[in-house]
Amino acid sequence: MRTIAIDAMGGENAPEAIVKAVLQVKTELTQTNFILFGDETKIKRLLDSDTERVEVVGTTEVINDEDEPVKAIRNKKDSSLVVAAQYVKAGKADALLSLGNTGALLSCGIFIIGRIKGVARPGLMPTLPVKNSDDGFNMIDVGANAKSKPEYILNWAQMAVYYAEKIRGVSNPRVALLNNGAESDKGDDIHQQAYQLLLDSDLNFIGNIEGNELLEGKADVVATDGFTGNAILKNIEGTSSVLIHMLKDSLLNNGLFTKLGALLIKKALKGLISKFDTSKYGGAVLLGVNAPIVKTHGRSDQRAIYYTLKQVDKILSEKIIDDFKAEFATKK
Amino acid sequence: MRTIAIDAMGGENAPEAIVKAVLQVKTELTQTNFILFGDETKIKRLLDSDTERVEVVGTTEVINDEDEPVKAIRNKKDSSLVVAAQYVKAGKADALLSLGNTGALLSCGIFIIGRIKGVARPGLMPTLPVKNSDDGFNMIDVGANAKSKPEYILNWAQMAVYYAEKIRGVSNPRVALLNNGAESDKGDDIHQQAYQLLLDSDLNFIGNIEGNELLEGKADVVATDGFTGNAILKNIEGTSSVLIHMLKDSLLNNGLFTKLGALLIKKALKGLISKFDTSKYGGAVLLGVNAPIVKTHGRSDQRAIYYTLKQVDKILSEKIIDDFKAEFATKK
Repeated sequence: MRTIAIDAMGGENAPEAIVKAVLQVKTELTQTNFILFGDETKIKRLLDSDTERVEVVGTTEVINDEDEPVKAIRNKKDSSLVVAAQYVKAGKADALLSLGNTGALLSCGIFIIGRIKGVARPGLMPTLPVKNSDDGFNMIDVGANAKSKPEYILNWAQMAVYYAEKIRGVSNPRVALLNNGAESDKGDDIHQQAYQLLLDSDLNFIGNIEGNELLEGKADVVATDGFTGNAILKNIEGTSSVLIHMLKDSLLNNGLFTKLGALLIKKALKGLISKFDTSKYGGAVLLGVNAPIVKTHGRSDQRAIYYTLKQVDKILSEKIIDDFKAEFATKK
Repeated sequence: MRTIAIDAMGGENAPEAIVKAVLQVKTELTQTNFILFGDETKIKRLLDSDTERVEVVGTTEVINDEDEPVKAIRNKKDSSLVVAAQYVKAGKADALLSLGNTGALLSCGIFIIGRIKGVARPGLMPTLPVKNSDDGFNMIDVGANAKSKPEYILNWAQMAVYYAEKIRGVSNPRVALLNNGAESDKGDDIHQQAYQLLLDSDLNFIGNIEGNELLEGKADVVATDGFTGNAILKNIEGTSSVLIHMLKDSLLNNGLFTKLGALLIKKALKGLISKFDTSKYGGAVLLGVNAPIVKTHGRSDQRAIYYTLKQVDKILSEKIIDDFKAEFATKK
């Protein structure tokens, strides 16, 4: 049996959507226990006495999106997130899922649950959509680190490749480095050195990738410094959301024929939007810490949380953290 | 009178679209001379003896997109681009426009035409679209520099603000710093220090902006390090092009009703695509060199080149380079 600790108070639809997703997924994940952290009364009411393999731990505080991460985990000791992280640290749970404050979750991962020995720095890794395929790609780091070094980038690529193989079923994942040009000498010192480290590694390194090529599906894993990765992840989100907003807007403000047309393409449009709804790929995983820490979008609904719980469970069943521990312990 | 030097051999539609755009614009820009550099026979045939205020300088070489920039400008001394840059350096032309190899154009700007005294580093600056407005915003630097320092970022913001005021007519432009969070202490050392420099400057600094907010229209000028700026510019291009591709694709592959709907929304869709066609804002300007150097997209058609020529002419008529020279000469 394995146990997933869930911060039931994070995100816009907490705790309803979270509790419902747990009830939905637990009929499929019969080898898994769930611990929900948060408002005990509310959560128990939502569970409606269906408590088989579901435990509730009552907590009195909540970390909000506005809270400064490091301060919040220090000051809000009885928050759903911090208590959940303490359960993982104490070995009472094996993985941590939250929809709340990303920075606070990362801080819990790094300061409470702790870094795997031999990993230079943990990195945050989402799975993102690509054109003409349902496969997606992994990008790491997207913001666990503001400052990156070449050896961090190598570590991130190594862990992401492992994840792509074991969890996403990609064989011999193609690894690319996000850079400002195709040639090997492109970029600043960090990226030039990261290029060399990746080239000398036993990864299937296919070279540099540029910002316009990310969604083309050229690479299965894109390694990047955490600062650029953060800007790019947010920019993919922002650009696609602005475009879809503008499309809807222009469909509604271009006369009767356009409105009729909009009705007829509704299904196709919905398909497109769902393609860019990254929730079907699950949450972003903090790789390099002693347990799977998964962040999924604050706007996630029951369905998205359900998928993310399956993803967390798969990470546990594949025991990739044990493999990382064995792999990196022998390094440096 | 002022004179624009034009590399007539760069881009996919060279030299036809370029020569035609010159012929189109010169009836409006009656105070401007044009010098076209490239294949003399071809260009003269396209001019069809309409040579009033248009000079042709025959050159025998062309720098391709695949050429390594610094090597290319050293080795292809009789290329349309290098000869055009030499004309600007010699004072025989006042500005340089090219649709070709961006790196080679930047190298011409930096090594042949030269940096303005007091400007730490030239920066490349496009005007990009924003949601719900035709105003757009300027982002600088988008890749003239792989390595950036805080004081470069301040200089870029100062020049971009000047451009936004004088050329785009924005009063008291709002300046933001692209960073990985809203708080003042976000980012790596470079961005933390750039934040302080911007805060202490006399610019209208509104703080940090994140990757998802760029197209929201919150800032008129976004200052960024050249590495991140390059990745972001390309990512906006790539993400919007993939989305539009996927939209078209799903409109054509979702049955008869969707196809009919697609016909009906054609006009609205075209409007959306033209909104994201950045060519109406003209080309990207290399700010901080002794003459306006403007790069416009290699795919630009006659109309886009026409707009860019008007932009170049306005930069000359507003004499912003003279102002930069005066402004920065007194600094450090």
